[in-house]
Amino acid sequence: MGSSFGNLFKIHTYGESHGPALGVIIDGCPAGLAIDTDFIQAELDRRKPGQSKITTQRKEADEFEILSGVFEGLSTGTPISILIRNKDQKSKDYSHIADKFRPSHADYTFHAKYGVRDYRGGGRSSARETVARVAAGAIAKLLLKHYGISTDAFVSQVGSLTLEKGYRELDLAKTEDNIVRCPDAETAERMIELIDQTRKNRDTIGGIITGVIQGVPAGLGEPVFDKLHAEIGKAMLSINAVKGFEYGSGFEGVKLNGSDHNDAFYQEGDAVKTKTNYSGGIQGGISNGQDIYFNVAFKPVATIMSDQESINTEGESVTVSGKGRHDPCVVPRAVPIVEAMAALVIADYLLISKTNRL
Amino acid sequence: MGSSFGNLFKIHTYGESHGPALGVIIDGCPAGLAIDTDFIQAELDRRKPGQSKITTQRKEADEFEILSGVFEGLSTGTPISILIRNKDQKSKDYSHIADKFRPSHADYTFHAKYGVRDYRGGGRSSARETVARVAAGAIAKLLLKHYGISTDAFVSQVGSLTLEKGYRELDLAKTEDNIVRCPDAETAERMIELIDQTRKNRDTIGGIITGVIQGVPAGLGEPVFDKLHAEIGKAMLSINAVKGFEYGSGFEGVKLNGSDHNDAFYQEGDAVKTKTNYSGGIQGGISNGQDIYFNVAFKPVATIMSDQESINTEGESVTVSGKGRHDPCVVPRAVPIVEAMAALVIADYLLISKTNRL
Amino acid sequence: MGSSFGNLFKIHTYGESHGPALGVIIDGCPAGLAIDTDFIQAELDRRKPGQSKITTQRKEADEFEILSGVFEGLSTGTPISILIRNKDQKSKDYSHIADKFRPSHADYTFHAKYGVRDYRGGGRSSARETVARVAAGAIAKLLLKHYGISTDAFVSQVGSLTLEKGYRELDLAKTEDNIVRCPDAETAERMIELIDQTRKNRDTIGGIITGVIQGVPAGLGEPVFDKLHAEIGKAMLSINAVKGFEYGSGFEGVKLNGSDHNDAFYQEGDAVKTKTNYSGGIQGGISNGQDIYFNVAFKPVATIMSDQESINTEGESVTVSGKGRHDPCVVPRAVPIVEAMAALVIADYLLISKTNRL
Amino acid sequence: MGSSFGNLFKIHTYGESHGPALGVIIDGCPAGLAIDTDFIQAELDRRKPGQSKITTQRKEADEFEILSGVFEGLSTGTPISILIRNKDQKSKDYSHIADKFRPSHADYTFHAKYGVRDYRGGGRSSARETVARVAAGAIAKLLLKHYGISTDAFVSQVGSLTLEKGYRELDLAKTEDNIVRCPDAETAERMIELIDQTRKNRDTIGGIITGVIQGVPAGLGEPVFDKLHAEIGKAMLSINAVKGFEYGSGFEGVKLNGSDHNDAFYQEGDAVKTKTNYSGGIQGGISNGQDIYFNVAFKPVATIMSDQESINTEGESVTVSGKGRHDPCVVPRAVPIVEAMAALVIADYLLISKTNRL
Repeated sequence: MGSSFGNLFKIHTYGESHGPALGVIIDGCPAGLAIDTDFIQAELDRRKPGQSKITTQRKEADEFEILSGVFEGLSTGTPISILIRNKDQKSKDYSHIADKFRPSHADYTFHAKYGVRDYRGGGRSSARETVARVAAGAIAKLLLKHYGISTDAFVSQVGSLTLEKGYRELDLAKTEDNIVRCPDAETAERMIELIDQTRKNRDTIGGIITGVIQGVPAGLGEPVFDKLHAEIGKAMLSINAVKGFEYGSGFEGVKLNGSDHNDAFYQEGDAVKTKTNYSGGIQGGISNGQDIYFNVAFKPVATIMSDQESINTEGESVTVSGKGRHDPCVVPRAVPIVEAMAALVIADYLLISKTNRL
Repeated sequence: MGSSFGNLFKIHTYGESHGPALGVIIDGCPAGLAIDTDFIQAELDRRKPGQSKITTQRKEADEFEILSGVFEGLSTGTPISILIRNKDQKSKDYSHIADKFRPSHADYTFHAKYGVRDYRGGGRSSARETVARVAAGAIAKLLLKHYGISTDAFVSQVGSLTLEKGYRELDLAKTEDNIVRCPDAETAERMIELIDQTRKNRDTIGGIITGVIQGVPAGLGEPVFDKLHAEIGKAMLSINAVKGFEYGSGFEGVKLNGSDHNDAFYQEGDAVKTKTNYSGGIQGGISNGQDIYFNVAFKPVATIMSDQESINTEGESVTVSGKGRHDPCVVPRAVPIVEAMAALVIADYLLISKTNRL
Repeated sequence: MGSSFGNLFKIHTYGESHGPALGVIIDGCPAGLAIDTDFIQAELDRRKPGQSKITTQRKEADEFEILSGVFEGLSTGTPISILIRNKDQKSKDYSHIADKFRPSHADYTFHAKYGVRDYRGGGRSSARETVARVAAGAIAKLLLKHYGISTDAFVSQVGSLTLEKGYRELDLAKTEDNIVRCPDAETAERMIELIDQTRKNRDTIGGIITGVIQGVPAGLGEPVFDKLHAEIGKAMLSINAVKGFEYGSGFEGVKLNGSDHNDAFYQEGDAVKTKTNYSGGIQGGISNGQDIYFNVAFKPVATIMSDQESINTEGESVTVSGKGRHDPCVVPRAVPIVEAMAALVIADYLLISKTNRL
Repeated sequence: MGSSFGNLFKIHTYGESHGPALGVIIDGCPAGLAIDTDFIQAELDRRKPGQSKITTQRKEADEFEILSGVFEGLSTGTPISILIRNKDQKSKDYSHIADKFRPSHADYTFHAKYGVRDYRGGGRSSARETVARVAAGAIAKLLLKHYGISTDAFVSQVGSLTLEKGYRELDLAKTEDNIVRCPDAETAERMIELIDQTRKNRDTIGGIITGVIQGVPAGLGEPVFDKLHAEIGKAMLSINAVKGFEYGSGFEGVKLNGSDHNDAFYQEGDAVKTKTNYSGGIQGGISNGQDIYFNVAFKPVATIMSDQESINTEGESVTVSGKGRHDPCVVPRAVPIVEAMAALVIADYLLISKTNRL
């Protein structure tokens, strides 16, 4: 188990890095939604490798095929199956790591759990798996667009280099203007330089992505366990390399007093608003109609281009040598993944909320 | 929905702050487990209000009754139902907030979601709900003890006051030695002073709880969505007032290079170990047999003892006045809740792991 | 697991025959529903023992208490917990069957599955468990009433004695007019005589209950696995002593040709109707707006008042002697249980159907 | 929703009759199982059309491709995705029924539920969907074989023509010896003749399939709602055209007295056995180690080769004319589907049972 996500807008994914294909079934998309295939491809292109000098140079086409659930351009309410073939995956040689456990990868834990594993490129544990999330997330985004909801993300930190501005001071439309996906041009340039230097050092580095969800009506979230931020948090923590999640005031908020942290309500026309938004758009686990924003921490990529000590399946000491073309920093390519997972949660909870009242 | 948690070791909770009772059904506890009722009461006592000068002065007995699923001291495999009656809840008067939305509470969001709500003491959104979690968590702890697994937590930060030592440098058995539940006596004293001062200012303050899970075998966790840390994260984020979660190197880890962050494997006798543990005991979403540790950020309590501006259900401006006896800082009483939620996740994933292999 | 039913209108039950209490949590009832407690009690009274000479002479009050989820008479959208205390259960003596397996009871299978079991009165396997279903079903019925949907059931067969009329020829309002719950007075009299004679023979006998659901809109049901009749079927088969389920033309329908069995559509005003209804109101697993009707087969009660051969937990041959006051035929008291389970399915699928379209 | 089945051994299916492909994800198959692809193909071949004169003459290759979850011939514990392409599906013309509702098909109900539908060949409601069940069922059968469990089925009735022998008097290995899949040669011949005559009359006819599950250990089943027979019943009722399900003594059992119906226990060596098996191998919803057997009723196929009255999407009267090549009786091809669904349930409950005890 473990490859399903969601309650009513529910997805099921499959696929290994070097198997024949990856894919996703979206079960529960309401009927009548126009499925814009160009948009899905555009989202997949944002995630795919080989986009710039600061991402892996691997080339993957990431072309998709819809196998079911769409008829004459509209969703029919039946499961939407999307297939993404792996290309040329057979040509690669992974025999050198077949019985070795790469440090801070999932080689050892999959071995310990299942006894057998597809070691090629990390198999199921490869971040290649996220292509299915982005495909499904694109459908979720189309649904949310219908309801006037947007899910955006951008890089707000690389290593110790922090974007000083909050999302309200930024033009999120500029996120795609540069290869690191930071909407502040000047900070972006410095981030790119840092990642490029790290790559030249044959090393890797971590980073933070900030997500912003706007247009969410009040009332989404299912306390006590399925609070909206708890589900968003799980969605983010399920992405490869993620080590932390915070929303609204987050970890910094613990330093404040309640008198500073509380968000005062006021009425503006028909709308209930808050003067501040330390709550991050969610109170008691339910959206309050204000912007939802959150941070997601990504560790440095585990694959580095130098030799490391480790052991093999026999418990013997071995050396693992970095090989291949990998991302020196995962955050630029993870931006569309963060958006996709956010969209999946909101789409799901939006459907649930239709059943809250008589 | 939203009041169930877990897959095989599954709980269902109910109850409002000022209704007749709260409770939980535990469905899926393996048969044959000795149910130590003294231990369950001891856990409930750790959570209950009125323990010290830095917690709320409300008195609640929090006595429980097991209604099913236990026969002659052993779990029978059928649902275990635990009931905790609310005492004297009828005597309190909450009419002054019946139609007002307290800032940064769940009053407005419940109103927006459901149209009707039990406003007394926050109703279902009250932290009183966590009594059911602690009761269920006690059963989970008994199960984990059988397998040699422990779940501990302690207060590691109050406001800006940080415990400088890591969990390995501390004696976690000392956590219960002081009323703030910080295992370092000196830091504890300063934390207590800070909370007491905050209380005297009629204000509140946030804090951080660190959790440590030891004895977990390698192999727990269900990628790709139900990664072990994703489920722990969701469990923690579902606790009232939580704003953030990180495990292993967490948010600080983003600043590191991969060459520093990777945990080198080595063999020690039959055991696979890592030299460092930035991974926090979880790799690729699956436990690797090392300690699991994490931080949980709690915001300052929203109920403060001064007047605040807000609106009512008609959208009119009103003043909300603090009343009653509330915690100036939630973290001391939240320690057993963090432990309980951690135990529930591990118990559940332990059962799932029994089905991973032929 | 196994004590939960439903997807959105979801119930969780607990409790043993001779434990302190039984109960149910209803999670997912929409907010704003008027909870008529007199109606709930009336439904429980229809199921309770001691109603007549053809049911068990045991007396149980079956008084209930709502512990949560209802405020000022309305459902709040949070879990509704209903508690039913067992009375005087401690006084009974079941030690004579503590280590014996009664034939065609669940004694052996619970023992084989769990190793430990509450043997008193069958424990969790007792039909007393259904009191929780009826309580939850009463809430579901209140919800359905709001949408103009009714769920009725009646006894249509006892032993080989069959009610010859179909439900359309009967006045279902007369079901409660007699103690066997057959709406045809004459047939009822003969059924009562047959059951009474069977009781005097210290034996038991089976029967069939017919269910009728009216007012269901077209569109309920979730193919391909969660077809409406598949879920109704599971609901019925989960009731104690049930051996079979059929809907519409059922087992008799296999003898027909397609040319006779097909239901021709026609339009009447705004309504789509069918000239015949062999389909039983469900086509392709989705309601078509016509009446849903079905039959449920109940085996003869396993507890008989004569000696039977069996074995004990040691595998030794023993004699089991019938004792106590038991139903000679289960169907009269099972009528409200069939209705309750039907109502739970329809309520659940009604909520799901709110999310089928954009 | 509705296209998932199972709890731990869980499947998710997709696909329309005339879309690009159908398929299934099996999530939860234990790691280390040898995946015999020849066996999977053989099972698909048993279900495929065009096998004989009494089944549809359509030709479909039903070749499958495994896209994930299998490495070097073994299951890896990750989701197993199986793809079956539709061939030549574009060439067919279904425009004549695009806006008509065929009697006793799912055309109207899908229209009423979703507003849009893929009308070609019934779309998602086509029995072609069951190819995904058979593929998944083949994996389940491989798992069960490992544990010594078999799931068999055969045709026991066509129209009013009944196989008089019970399964114990038959050699189930002979089921595949004839085209109707009845293990009694003489009865088979008469069934074939009846179906062939029905086909020549341009009509269709119903039938019954009997299923037998052998080798199941005592202890499978999850009362109170997920009783083993309740889940098997749901599994069977979810198959296209099924109208009824009974197990053990079934509907006939209602006529018996308890003194005749009860199954006496006796010990034989280490094994607990029963002298009779009216219980059908399940008591209190849990397997008791004896054979599980059940009947499944299939209605006559709705597509007949004559003109029928109906309406269109505008509510106007229209004539629907039979066209194409369809099965005159569904039961011969449904035998492997019944076996597949039975195998899926037992595989799932076998995994669950691993977690029942400490």
